[in-house]
Amino acid sequence: MFSLPKPIVKLIESFERLPGIGPKTAQRLAFYLLHVPQEMLEEFGQSLASLKKLTVFCSACFNIGESDPCYICSQPSRDKSLICVVEQALDIISFEKTGKFNGVYHVLHGSINPLLNIGPDEIRIAELLSRLKMQSTPIAEVILATNPNMEGEATAMYIQRELNKLKTDLALIMKVTRLAHGLPMGADIEYADAITLSRSLEGRREF
Amino acid sequence: MFSLPKPIVKLIESFERLPGIGPKTAQRLAFYLLHVPQEMLEEFGQSLASLKKLTVFCSACFNIGESDPCYICSQPSRDKSLICVVEQALDIISFEKTGKFNGVYHVLHGSINPLLNIGPDEIRIAELLSRLKMQSTPIAEVILATNPNMEGEATAMYIQRELNKLKTDLALIMKVTRLAHGLPMGADIEYADAITLSRSLEGRREF
Repeated sequence: MFSLPKPIVKLIESFERLPGIGPKTAQRLAFYLLHVPQEMLEEFGQSLASLKKLTVFCSACFNIGESDPCYICSQPSRDKSLICVVEQALDIISFEKTGKFNGVYHVLHGSINPLLNIGPDEIRIAELLSRLKMQSTPIAEVILATNPNMEGEATAMYIQRELNKLKTDLALIMKVTRLAHGLPMGADIEYADAITLSRSLEGRREF
Repeated sequence: MFSLPKPIVKLIESFERLPGIGPKTAQRLAFYLLHVPQEMLEEFGQSLASLKKLTVFCSACFNIGESDPCYICSQPSRDKSLICVVEQALDIISFEKTGKFNGVYHVLHGSINPLLNIGPDEIRIAELLSRLKMQSTPIAEVILATNPNMEGEATAMYIQRELNKLKTDLALIMKVTRLAHGLPMGADIEYADAITLSRSLEGRREF
């Protein structure tokens, strides 16, 4: 039986391990790279090998950056009493693009997912709690900005319970909020799903 | 404005250059790789950097392999008088999987595509013609197995014309064939497109 050359097979396997890339796509990418200049391949390989060496987790918020504390935590203009809890570092980019948030972040690096064996201890919830305990400036508000799906909701509920315990234990005055759910801008009510529409009814506000 | 750490941006750019990977997917892949063991990253990087160093084009058929001549051309059992012309090395895998072809291949590495500025000289047509001229064993048949789309059809037509010239010039007796077009197995006539259905009518055979 004819088989592919080993160097190509190895590269295909590396691509296949990436999320959302199946065997066919991996094959196509590997064969595409055969026609690419050698310098581009070396550069790509270098970027991969040095990715984790040149980046660090911020010890305050666990964002990924080139320095510790990260770019956001080290800015004096940011409001340290307002913490936005997100699932992954990518979510920070989305928030920063809005230009409407001047607080700091806390990156959980995942969400509680029993199906994938990810419990509360696997993500950075303990670090959030100890950050709240240690922080010198009192925290005014924690925004739970996990994704509006099953795992994100479960994570937010778990964190909220832990924060309530913390509040009673330490007699803290701290708001815990959740992002608003409802119709996305530009949506069609006709095509909205029932859950989103009922959420947007529940969360309606005076005009 | 908040921006991503440079090492991540560089990796995202490398991913974005791959076909079918947009900015969002590139971002997701790069962030995914932050959570992967360093050895895996090094291995991936190694595979990329050594991909072209460890593989060669077969000087007979331009297939990609670890040796020259390639695995297929070096097998004595293969029928050297039967040449199947394909657009890319990946197509060979599909043919080999059928187990129905015992000839050899010729890889064009592309198809004629005026929109992308790929003319007959950019793909390995000249090499096919000189191969046919040089070959010691007479060629019985050339199968033009380019893709059944606009570019593939144009390429097949161009090659057929060149082969006809060659045949008259050298007084060769050589069949030039094209793969059969028609309904794919398991298809529904109800949903077949008009071109495919008319091709399958034209190509009908006695039962």
